[in-house]
Amino acid sequence: MKVVREHSATPAKKTVRGETRTTQIYEAAARVFCEHGFGQSSMSDVAAAVDMTKAGIYHHISSKDELLFGIMSYGMDIFEERVLDRVEKIRDPLERLRATIRGHLLLVTRDRTKEVTVILNEGHALHGDYRTEIDRRKRRYVRFLNEMFRELQRKGFVREIDPRVATFAMLGMINWTYHWYTAGGRLRDTEVAEAYVDLFLGGLLDPNRLIDSEMAHHEDH
Amino acid sequence: MKVVREHSATPAKKTVRGETRTTQIYEAAARVFCEHGFGQSSMSDVAAAVDMTKAGIYHHISSKDELLFGIMSYGMDIFEERVLDRVEKIRDPLERLRATIRGHLLLVTRDRTKEVTVILNEGHALHGDYRTEIDRRKRRYVRFLNEMFRELQRKGFVREIDPRVATFAMLGMINWTYHWYTAGGRLRDTEVAEAYVDLFLGGLLDPNRLIDSEMAHHEDH
Repeated sequence: MKVVREHSATPAKKTVRGETRTTQIYEAAARVFCEHGFGQSSMSDVAAAVDMTKAGIYHHISSKDELLFGIMSYGMDIFEERVLDRVEKIRDPLERLRATIRGHLLLVTRDRTKEVTVILNEGHALHGDYRTEIDRRKRRYVRFLNEMFRELQRKGFVREIDPRVATFAMLGMINWTYHWYTAGGRLRDTEVAEAYVDLFLGGLLDPNRLIDSEMAHHEDH
Repeated sequence: MKVVREHSATPAKKTVRGETRTTQIYEAAARVFCEHGFGQSSMSDVAAAVDMTKAGIYHHISSKDELLFGIMSYGMDIFEERVLDRVEKIRDPLERLRATIRGHLLLVTRDRTKEVTVILNEGHALHGDYRTEIDRRKRRYVRFLNEMFRELQRKGFVREIDPRVATFAMLGMINWTYHWYTAGGRLRDTEVAEAYVDLFLGGLLDPNRLIDSEMAHHEDH
């Protein structure tokens, strides 16, 4: 595991990365929750997966809810550190968009799939302050994307589209990957990343056929 | 596993729509499962939501697993009836693609959101024959999309892209909508549908700026 804590903003998010035992529990618990669902899994299942006693687990984590929050925070830490904090610094908005698509997708397809899946699937299981905190961190990313699409529009790169629609179309395309992509299969994830960059920026249609297709579009209206 | 039971098999989907009581239970249970997760919900919660006794529920449905399978089948029935069976008949592949994006999206944003959400989120909770049957029906749609993208490529409409990547990019973009779209908000779902058609077919970039942006693309490689 690469513990890259370069940026100055990160120190506030202290705990997670240092405590390797806790990290192991998060990773094992994420696997268990992904496979069986949060509701169907018990702390005993988690203890078995990390080869500890239940008492041992409770030494590190006080409740199943705290554990879920811990996994989600851990997933968000990794996402911010490896993707968001880095791409935010790219000045050219088109290059920033491409780097975001690539970085986010490769995070989903590589080792952190489990945490990401839990973040995506079990949002409804979080309540109160835990929910508020995770939602706040998700919103930071959404705001970043919205702002990038606005900038691209201001600079005339992008067709007229509601930034919110562009944001969630992109998030859907990328986040959905965990449903279908299998590492080590026919498709390399770097190929998927480039295909997504091309598809999202340039569309499905062959640019040389754009005129024909636009005619067809008018016909069926 | 290819169990291609396409067209002739559709009449076999008799049951669901006729039995209104069962349908009411499915709809209420779908709401409960969406809100609290399948694992965290009990048959008593479902009974309370539909204002029946637990015994009353068990008169219609023999187990929670059967209930989950029932909801998913019901969601697939609606999807096939309102979207897939209709768009399959459209001969022009570009028009077929647009109609599929619109039809699928509007199904997600309108009244069937709950069933769709359950289908998407709780797949892992289904086992054995139930799982096999739902997966078979999902695969029919995936095959339809793959085949459509192949046809569009054969006919020269579409840039070079792996049909599987195009299929899941599209499914991700559309299915994700249930995470963020709120009916009655600022955006009408028909606007989202048209924006998705334009974005998926034509891409984000302004076609008039295509050359500049492709230059930028080469620069950053």
